Amino acid sequence: MKTPEPIKRFADLFAELPGVGPRQALRIALYVVHKGNGFASGLVSALSGLRSIKICERCFNLYEGGNLCEICSDASREQDVIAVIEKETDLLSMEKTGRFRGRYLVIGDMRKLGVLSSEQKIKLRSLEEQIKDLFGGKAKEIILALNPNPVGDVISSLISEEMRPYALKITRLGRGIPTGGEIEFADEETLGEAITRRG
Amino acid sequence: MKTPEPIKRFADLFAELPGVGPRQALRIALYVVHKGNGFASGLVSALSGLRSIKICERCFNLYEGGNLCEICSDASREQDVIAVIEKETDLLSMEKTGRFRGRYLVIGDMRKLGVLSSEQKIKLRSLEEQIKDLFGGKAKEIILALNPNPVGDVISSLISEEMRPYALKITRLGRGIPTGGEIEFADEETLGEAITRRG
Repeated sequence: MKTPEPIKRFADLFAELPGVGPRQALRIALYVVHKGNGFASGLVSALSGLRSIKICERCFNLYEGGNLCEICSDASREQDVIAVIEKETDLLSMEKTGRFRGRYLVIGDMRKLGVLSSEQKIKLRSLEEQIKDLFGGKAKEIILALNPNPVGDVISSLISEEMRPYALKITRLGRGIPTGGEIEFADEETLGEAITRRG
Repeated sequence: MKTPEPIKRFADLFAELPGVGPRQALRIALYVVHKGNGFASGLVSALSGLRSIKICERCFNLYEGGNLCEICSDASREQDVIAVIEKETDLLSMEKTGRFRGRYLVIGDMRKLGVLSSEQKIKLRSLEEQIKDLFGGKAKEIILALNPNPVGDVISSLISEEMRPYALKITRLGRGIPTGGEIEFADEETLGEAITRRG
């Protein structure tokens, strides 16, 4: 007795999804079979729905409809304040705070090597062009909102160097003790940053 | 800026799958979008492939093609030695050992309450009928291969009681120190069982 071929094929493919291992993919396959054809059809239609998603040519965020994404086409937001972020989920987190009224550049997954990929260089180049075309050569501010870890630090310096001629100000997100955290349990690095960046 | 509707719909549905939470479902949606339409089509076709999966009317295992599953239609296997198991993945684990030449009854998820569901009662009733029709009223052996934990123990007793008139022998899987395990680190219950069931 081997796993039936369609279940195996399903599990092999689903095991490629982020955070899903081979055993879980098999469990998912069995779950879908037991839930019946109605459930499977729902999944198929959800998958097909993803076809209508486009990538915004200005910020490289995902969106639906229109020419630019909701944020890039929103005149009430400061289009010359640009947060460079790694991925779409970071954008959603930033938006949830309600504290940011600029727009974004989704730079894409940071590579462990701490170098910019050619795709990322193209995105920065495109940002430079936008800044030249729309704001006469200098954006008001570029915020490097990348994860505060060694790779994020290196990538931030690289972007900072590249974009310096194109922004009046280049900043990074604040670093320190998280709200609700305790000084006693903060790691040295975090507490050190909190002291250096006090204010 | 909200998550685009098709991504939200996908994430909501995928979050229902076993072991997938809302955040992971969102990450999967973004991953699928970035992989492009070819990858999404692959997932759709894998899902559609699951339609050809049937449930064996004798053992309730999943299979493809034929009238009964591969194991129930295999004359070289002892059809009157029946292992009662909880789920398909347990069946696959049993088969991988190559040590079992009987067949199965997939009884379905054990409920935490330690009672048989009406579906499980129907499955046992159907096993009784098979035993009457095929083996003149008594199977050679019924092996209760359910997980060795309190719920498994209770369910095993219930099944044992129910099936006693229909089997020459009712057994359970061996319990004790796992191969490669260390006596020093075995919990009391496991070591206790190993002593009681020595041989």
